[in-house]
Amino acid sequence: MFDLENYHSRIARYLDDSKEENKVFFNALRFAHDLHKGQIRKSGAPYISHPCAVAEILIRELGFKDPILLAAALLHDVVEDVPSITLEDIESRFGETVAELVDGCTKLTRHHLDRAALKDLTHSKIFLSASRRLGVLIIKLADRLHNLRTLHFLPLAKRQRIAQETVEVYAPIAARLNLFPLKRELYHLALSFLYPRKSKKILNRIREIRSSPEVVEIEETLKRTFSDKIPSVVIRPRPKGLGSYYDPRKRSLDPLNPENYIDFAIILPTENILDCYLALGIVNSTYPPIPRSMRDFIANPKSNGYRSLHVRVHVKGQNYLIKIRTPEMDQWAAFGVLAEWDAQEALSDEHWHEVSELLRSIGEYGGAATQRKALIRLSETEDTFVYSPNGDIFYLPRNSVVLDFAYKIHSELGDFCEGALINNDWAPPTRRLQDGDTVEILTSPDPLDVDPDLEELCKTPKARTAINRHLQQKRSHYAEEIGRQILEQEIERHGLASDVLLGESTRLMLEILNLKDLSELFIRIGQDLIDPHLILYYLESVSSNTEREKQPSLEPILERNTISICELDKAIHKFARCCNPYPGQEDIVATLSERGITFHHRDCQDLLVRHDLRPQQLVDVQWCAQKAWRYPLVFQIQVLHETMSSLLPILSRIKGEIQVQKIEHILDKHDQPVILMNVKLRDFKEAHDFFMNLPAQHLSIEYYGREGGLRKRHLQHNESTVF
Amino acid sequence: MFDLENYHSRIARYLDDSKEENKVFFNALRFAHDLHKGQIRKSGAPYISHPCAVAEILIRELGFKDPILLAAALLHDVVEDVPSITLEDIESRFGETVAELVDGCTKLTRHHLDRAALKDLTHSKIFLSASRRLGVLIIKLADRLHNLRTLHFLPLAKRQRIAQETVEVYAPIAARLNLFPLKRELYHLALSFLYPRKSKKILNRIREIRSSPEVVEIEETLKRTFSDKIPSVVIRPRPKGLGSYYDPRKRSLDPLNPENYIDFAIILPTENILDCYLALGIVNSTYPPIPRSMRDFIANPKSNGYRSLHVRVHVKGQNYLIKIRTPEMDQWAAFGVLAEWDAQEALSDEHWHEVSELLRSIGEYGGAATQRKALIRLSETEDTFVYSPNGDIFYLPRNSVVLDFAYKIHSELGDFCEGALINNDWAPPTRRLQDGDTVEILTSPDPLDVDPDLEELCKTPKARTAINRHLQQKRSHYAEEIGRQILEQEIERHGLASDVLLGESTRLMLEILNLKDLSELFIRIGQDLIDPHLILYYLESVSSNTEREKQPSLEPILERNTISICELDKAIHKFARCCNPYPGQEDIVATLSERGITFHHRDCQDLLVRHDLRPQQLVDVQWCAQKAWRYPLVFQIQVLHETMSSLLPILSRIKGEIQVQKIEHILDKHDQPVILMNVKLRDFKEAHDFFMNLPAQHLSIEYYGREGGLRKRHLQHNESTVF
Repeated sequence: MFDLENYHSRIARYLDDSKEENKVFFNALRFAHDLHKGQIRKSGAPYISHPCAVAEILIRELGFKDPILLAAALLHDVVEDVPSITLEDIESRFGETVAELVDGCTKLTRHHLDRAALKDLTHSKIFLSASRRLGVLIIKLADRLHNLRTLHFLPLAKRQRIAQETVEVYAPIAARLNLFPLKRELYHLALSFLYPRKSKKILNRIREIRSSPEVVEIEETLKRTFSDKIPSVVIRPRPKGLGSYYDPRKRSLDPLNPENYIDFAIILPTENILDCYLALGIVNSTYPPIPRSMRDFIANPKSNGYRSLHVRVHVKGQNYLIKIRTPEMDQWAAFGVLAEWDAQEALSDEHWHEVSELLRSIGEYGGAATQRKALIRLSETEDTFVYSPNGDIFYLPRNSVVLDFAYKIHSELGDFCEGALINNDWAPPTRRLQDGDTVEILTSPDPLDVDPDLEELCKTPKARTAINRHLQQKRSHYAEEIGRQILEQEIERHGLASDVLLGESTRLMLEILNLKDLSELFIRIGQDLIDPHLILYYLESVSSNTEREKQPSLEPILERNTISICELDKAIHKFARCCNPYPGQEDIVATLSERGITFHHRDCQDLLVRHDLRPQQLVDVQWCAQKAWRYPLVFQIQVLHETMSSLLPILSRIKGEIQVQKIEHILDKHDQPVILMNVKLRDFKEAHDFFMNLPAQHLSIEYYGREGGLRKRHLQHNESTVF
Repeated sequence: MFDLENYHSRIARYLDDSKEENKVFFNALRFAHDLHKGQIRKSGAPYISHPCAVAEILIRELGFKDPILLAAALLHDVVEDVPSITLEDIESRFGETVAELVDGCTKLTRHHLDRAALKDLTHSKIFLSASRRLGVLIIKLADRLHNLRTLHFLPLAKRQRIAQETVEVYAPIAARLNLFPLKRELYHLALSFLYPRKSKKILNRIREIRSSPEVVEIEETLKRTFSDKIPSVVIRPRPKGLGSYYDPRKRSLDPLNPENYIDFAIILPTENILDCYLALGIVNSTYPPIPRSMRDFIANPKSNGYRSLHVRVHVKGQNYLIKIRTPEMDQWAAFGVLAEWDAQEALSDEHWHEVSELLRSIGEYGGAATQRKALIRLSETEDTFVYSPNGDIFYLPRNSVVLDFAYKIHSELGDFCEGALINNDWAPPTRRLQDGDTVEILTSPDPLDVDPDLEELCKTPKARTAINRHLQQKRSHYAEEIGRQILEQEIERHGLASDVLLGESTRLMLEILNLKDLSELFIRIGQDLIDPHLILYYLESVSSNTEREKQPSLEPILERNTISICELDKAIHKFARCCNPYPGQEDIVATLSERGITFHHRDCQDLLVRHDLRPQQLVDVQWCAQKAWRYPLVFQIQVLHETMSSLLPILSRIKGEIQVQKIEHILDKHDQPVILMNVKLRDFKEAHDFFMNLPAQHLSIEYYGREGGLRKRHLQHNESTVF
């Protein structure tokens, strides 16, 4: 039984229920209470206890006083869980803002999508609405926190999902917004569920560290040194939380992960900024700093507004991070953007802009869910700094490239970037930026030609999202072309009039399939989302005899459609690894999808099985043998089970002016000897002549693309093998 | 006419001539005056004016009060220029210290050496004696400064030499010892003589910079900001001097050389160190610092004792370095080690140790003069820092490797270093050190196997000097072997008894040639420093008939001696570039020298001409075809005028298990297409079989050695071509 009055009076201590502006919250409270009446949580508690707890977290733990936000927190589940209630009801009763917030928090339910896709879309929705109303995210985080605290009541599978999602999405975003305590607890709860044994170990370790003689000694020493110089300063040692031990790439807890295991926060008694530097002097003369480890985040605050002086010290083989700050800065360090929060959500523009742009990029991202999750982590360390030509400083994630900078300044600049002047020397869009570079972006009239490598190379969410959008456009544009080719072949094969698509019947069909127009139809066929036969049946069924030239054959078609390929574009064309197909090879078939098309050999064993396809879903591939590609492509080919001496004769037999650039005998990451070859090819004929000589079954195309991209890979390859 | 009394009284203002301890100086003054009487400088001034000027520079400009040093300064030329005076005279009159100092300053005069070699030996001598008595260097620097100030009186060729030497040796070492004003003027005088036009340009530029509105504004702003916080602080803008524009590698003045064109020194009114940090705060809140540009050389003084807070700021596209210090630190910044100087030359031990070890390494270096000069520059920027296992911090020049660290800790550790644990992972001695690495050196029972690459790879004078010493030992050991082979062949050819060398005659001969023992004789023959025929004549002349087996043939020998090569060691064996010889090739001859032996093809056109040798100086080379090398060697081969398609058939014809590791088609630094090959070979037979197939005339061996070394080169190669 949920004690409403008790809860009401508890809250009233923070939120004066006599005040007019707070009415909205207490009305929402009664409203939600009535609606959820009878609903029970897995824990057996009445359902209302959950939204109430969420609101209470916001009020008591995060110090929110905004009644609108809090009302929305109370109502965040009703639309989802109470069939009788619509957003309109919420809006009419509690106003637009509350409705927006509730809407933002509401899960999507599209029945034709599998759960993973649905979840990803929901994330996308949350981030998008959060980019307009940060409140959405705040509520979701508090919501998630309460779910985790009551995790044990849920069925195992669901716990797993929630914990995983927390680690991949909510905790990192909390970190990104610098919501320190929230992030810390989210990681703590989720990780200790996901990795119980390792977590326990590490938690013990953390406890040891905190009480270790070294740490205690440093603490004491600092206290002593400060006592006579700046009395009543607070020294706060804080061991890194579980989250810092988590490696998202490896999806594992690594006891060696953190650069330092414990921080010391030094909080000064006053707001006088100069005292921070005085304190720095005291610290440095006590413990000589690690060279170049001093960071002044007071003069240069982080993009999320964080301010402090940082310095690392090295004591007895251990690194310690010391943070010096005033009480106000300490507030900010704990509550990040929320420290500036007020009823109007008026964050100072620059921070709001930063945050909102990040959230929007993540929300708009069109690629796979895993990549979207990666976006959240990307900008965690905005550590590289460069200058614009007029001397403004910009911070970017480590390893950012010219293109990241271009997009950071303006999307237009990114979309048309053809390079940059870095300290007055020309550099390609893929050039990695170095600290202190002065970067002037150069644009060209025609838009950037994108491919997946480029997306991967960029390190800012904004750039990746933009590039991915261009990738999707490219792909659907291409799919439309393919789709048209396929449908025309089907039409002819079924002896329908070539102009059948112009007929009335088509309009009807598009309506039935709920498609905007023909090009959308072509796209969906070209992405194998609609079976062309299906279309045929529609057309058959509606087409009058007059439109028909010969008797329709509706027995299943075994004859395959054909697409002709004149260019290779790695944004679209992939070579399967199962059957080692190569460009220009005969008997190549392709599978279609939203991500482009993949070539297989027709006899590929596991082709149909693995992708569980119907034979009709394959298309035959025809290469335009005559036409030269727009620009030569470099293929990096890996050959197994061959030695130089067995391969050289083969290569020496190859006719024509084919440019082999490099042949190298290396050890792959499993220390297996392999031969890597780079060859530059100009058309399908050359490709055919080259590949047909090689032992097809031991050959795989590791990479192909324009020269620039490949060079980059080389360097990486060398770095990894050399050092 | 030189006015002794006037000079005396001028000096007496600084050096009380009534004080007993100062007597030595005034005695030396009168003594030198009498000795140099009548000698005239090129300027027409009496000779004595020079030593007096040197002493005066030391007293009035560098603030020395040490009468011993000053006396030595007065006498620094007498032994050189006054035949009647010996060091013994100096010692008996003025004591040991003065004598030592004077000796250190005295040029070497060995008539069998050319000027360059002599000069280099003199440098070596100066540095060695300076490593015992820093005073030697101080006097040399003041001496050099006065020479430059009066340069215009000297003949052009001599000016050239002096100026060049100043730029290459004295100015850099003054910089290294942090003798700021000295360094600045030395560079200024020498460079404006060497590069008159460019210097003028840059000097104008420097003047402009100083008075540019940006600089003036920064100066004003800082003054204003400080005035109410720390009154009476001194703001001193100082444009970089000519020296900072000089690029010793390119031997040119580059207007773009300095990282920043002007520094601002902020000197506080007090000695209170904490005020420096306060000042840092004031600066940073006026101009946000360039991230990671703050350096605390107060808590971590430079190895030469320099202390200050550094921070870089970026204003309107320009970088400025701001240095914050107390008056005492400012003293150090100006006079470096001299700031601590006193009569006993009692530098604080650590600084003295640093300085003295550097000077000794430079003095002891056994390589070419240019390399010795490089040593002086090497350690200018000790910027990388690493930790020993017990947490002590060590500073090393940028790009230092494990071996540098090993030698820095202890010569033994370097000589037997076989690798290291870097942050607990194994690393080879050639691994580059990263900031913050914790490095534990691993030693092996057998000494390090050195080669020239290794020396070049190291970045500390100590390591290079040690490695070079090992190189020399290796070479002379090898030369001894060769020399023996050669002499034995000569002996047999002249029909002398094989045991002739054991005879009495030998002892005589060694005495005449003033050689310690036979092995020294062999070495000098093996290095082509003694003509074996010469030895023969000696032996002939003294050998009795009984010792003789057949009639001696004393007509010039055209038959060549033969040496047999069973191993390739790049410390010793070089392949000439003129005639592209290769290992295992027939008809190979070799030239001998102190630096090892160089292979040529017997028909090499310019062999005898270029090196102007007598035919007898060549030896025939015989490869041990059977025996495998101790370890396989990797050869990097460059082939010109070939394409992959022309080379592949050739390679594919090569028989046997030869391991070609890599074939790459690249552009060399002149953008000429060349083919680079790496091949791993195990003996001369394999080498022969491999190379004989290649187009000899277009082939050059770029590099050979163990695999490790080659890999390193690759990375560099890629870095340069990729970015």
